[in-house]
Amino acid sequence: MSYLRDEISEQPAVFARLLHESGEQVRTAARRIADRAPSLVVFVARGSSDNAATYGRYLVETSLGVPVSSAAPSITGLYRRPPRLADALVVGISQSGQSPDVVGVLDDARRQGALTLAISNDAAAPLASAAELLIEQRSGPERSVAATKTYTTQLVCIALLVAALGQDPVLIEGLGRLPAAARAALCLEGAVARIAHALADQPACLMLARGFNYATALELALKLKELAYVFAEPYSGADFLHGPAALATRELPAVLVGVEGPTQPGLLELSQRLIGAGVRVHTLSDDPALLEAGRAWPSASLADALAGVPEALSPPIAIVPGQLLALHLAARRRGDDLDQPRGLSKVTRTS
Amino acid sequence: MSYLRDEISEQPAVFARLLHESGEQVRTAARRIADRAPSLVVFVARGSSDNAATYGRYLVETSLGVPVSSAAPSITGLYRRPPRLADALVVGISQSGQSPDVVGVLDDARRQGALTLAISNDAAAPLASAAELLIEQRSGPERSVAATKTYTTQLVCIALLVAALGQDPVLIEGLGRLPAAARAALCLEGAVARIAHALADQPACLMLARGFNYATALELALKLKELAYVFAEPYSGADFLHGPAALATRELPAVLVGVEGPTQPGLLELSQRLIGAGVRVHTLSDDPALLEAGRAWPSASLADALAGVPEALSPPIAIVPGQLLALHLAARRRGDDLDQPRGLSKVTRTS
Repeated sequence: MSYLRDEISEQPAVFARLLHESGEQVRTAARRIADRAPSLVVFVARGSSDNAATYGRYLVETSLGVPVSSAAPSITGLYRRPPRLADALVVGISQSGQSPDVVGVLDDARRQGALTLAISNDAAAPLASAAELLIEQRSGPERSVAATKTYTTQLVCIALLVAALGQDPVLIEGLGRLPAAARAALCLEGAVARIAHALADQPACLMLARGFNYATALELALKLKELAYVFAEPYSGADFLHGPAALATRELPAVLVGVEGPTQPGLLELSQRLIGAGVRVHTLSDDPALLEAGRAWPSASLADALAGVPEALSPPIAIVPGQLLALHLAARRRGDDLDQPRGLSKVTRTS
Repeated sequence: MSYLRDEISEQPAVFARLLHESGEQVRTAARRIADRAPSLVVFVARGSSDNAATYGRYLVETSLGVPVSSAAPSITGLYRRPPRLADALVVGISQSGQSPDVVGVLDDARRQGALTLAISNDAAAPLASAAELLIEQRSGPERSVAATKTYTTQLVCIALLVAALGQDPVLIEGLGRLPAAARAALCLEGAVARIAHALADQPACLMLARGFNYATALELALKLKELAYVFAEPYSGADFLHGPAALATRELPAVLVGVEGPTQPGLLELSQRLIGAGVRVHTLSDDPALLEAGRAWPSASLADALAGVPEALSPPIAIVPGQLLALHLAARRRGDDLDQPRGLSKVTRTS
């Protein structure tokens, strides 16, 4: 057993607790943000939290129409030339709330008069003190070095806030389905184990997705790197065609995450093109055509898990089989402690 | 011979022409932008042009203090929910000026009342017509599929504009040195050929940099992928420590691009840590300590090339040995036409 497996499995319960207990913090934050009507949202984060910020960017721009920027902490921390953020909402995301560079950007933004919000798993951490507003992840302690439940609860915190700000009934109703959807996603372990078997001897792998689930490709690639030491490289389906497509050969397998919605036609075309070039495409999808295109290789159907979940809320569910894939690949490829990847510690202090 | 080599070699002359001929377009754009005083700059680009946008983000934020967002074309093109950009300057970057998704974001932004600027190598292309303002790259035709001189001239166009807007004497003086600096960078071919020899049999490689030259790591990785089919993965030095550091082993070499300035101490620490883990670190740097740390492996000193060039203008020079590295690696690893990588065409039409 490992903390990693426990923490992946806890996600349905953790989502339910977060939905149940976060109401007041989310309402307070939404009220203050609506009063200020920021012209820009800036996310500040590192690692898995930065992948959560990528999801936040798609959700904020499509649901609220407010442009989103992603802060480069070095511009404040190293070059000491922070941009003007007085009219912005600046959102720091960090499980531990300890990362000095993320805290530094929040401190500076608050001094400038920006509205600041922390999304963190630790209400007593420096990030929570630095920000005016706080939404706690309420995920309980995470003991595995690799973030799993604290990544997905960051997505859910962002979705709760955007749903409250936009008063969007589709998001509000969909949020209530996430605990059950996460339970259904955990049932994909058998299918995912077959993908892990197929990938076990591969040193490298492409991760492809687009739109909301581009964040899923980023996070899945990070999990495969840190847990299974697979050189997994993530691409948006569109960016992939601008250069990296030269890498597509039968020696380099791909995992494609595709969810029904506006990105489906482009991803189907990409999948067919890769398969035509001899690439083995493992598909994680609720879309019959995408699953049919990749039927020659082990894949996992997200149809049950995503039933009733709008595309905009699919990322915290679609990553769950990806976490299990990383777990299985790590178990096959490594003999050591799954909770302690080489070269990493739980809190990374960069500046 | 190849167009690729010719186009890399042309860069000193192309920089000189651009500096000489772009004055009026740059002044017109700077005047209009200063009048509007945008609260946000949004870059829209794909592939190498998106790496130029990454440079633009660092330069605009540090020099002008205006926050920068990078548009996800799918939010306008596929989800049809573009964010509100009326107060923004929206900059589309595309060598060909043909990419429908980039043009679509500019069209929409202009309808919303945003000020729009095209940076393109083709003044007759749809992107140039879509935008109110134009800065031409004046690079002449690029026949190789891999962008070289059209990447660096995009950087120079951005720097010319920011220098004019900020009336920054360091940038203005430094720009005049770029043609000579590019000539000196071309003299690194011998050193780079030794790095290519060392990397010739490696299927994968890490690319590390930080700050302004994070764009250099991104672009160098893209060149190695599309030209040499090397699975090269770029990281900011800080992001690398948040997860991907687990990949660091003696089997995976690294190329580290480090330029004197505020990022140097962190990069030196990273280099020493990687070397301690057994990683072969090939260093492209003008910094004696970074070069000394990596002295056990072939490296290239940028000291002559970057003499008198401020860090903020180093990216169009630091990528030149990277382009030569990709050329040499491609020649060693491929027998086919260097100007035509598999699976790619010069204009990629994504939506």
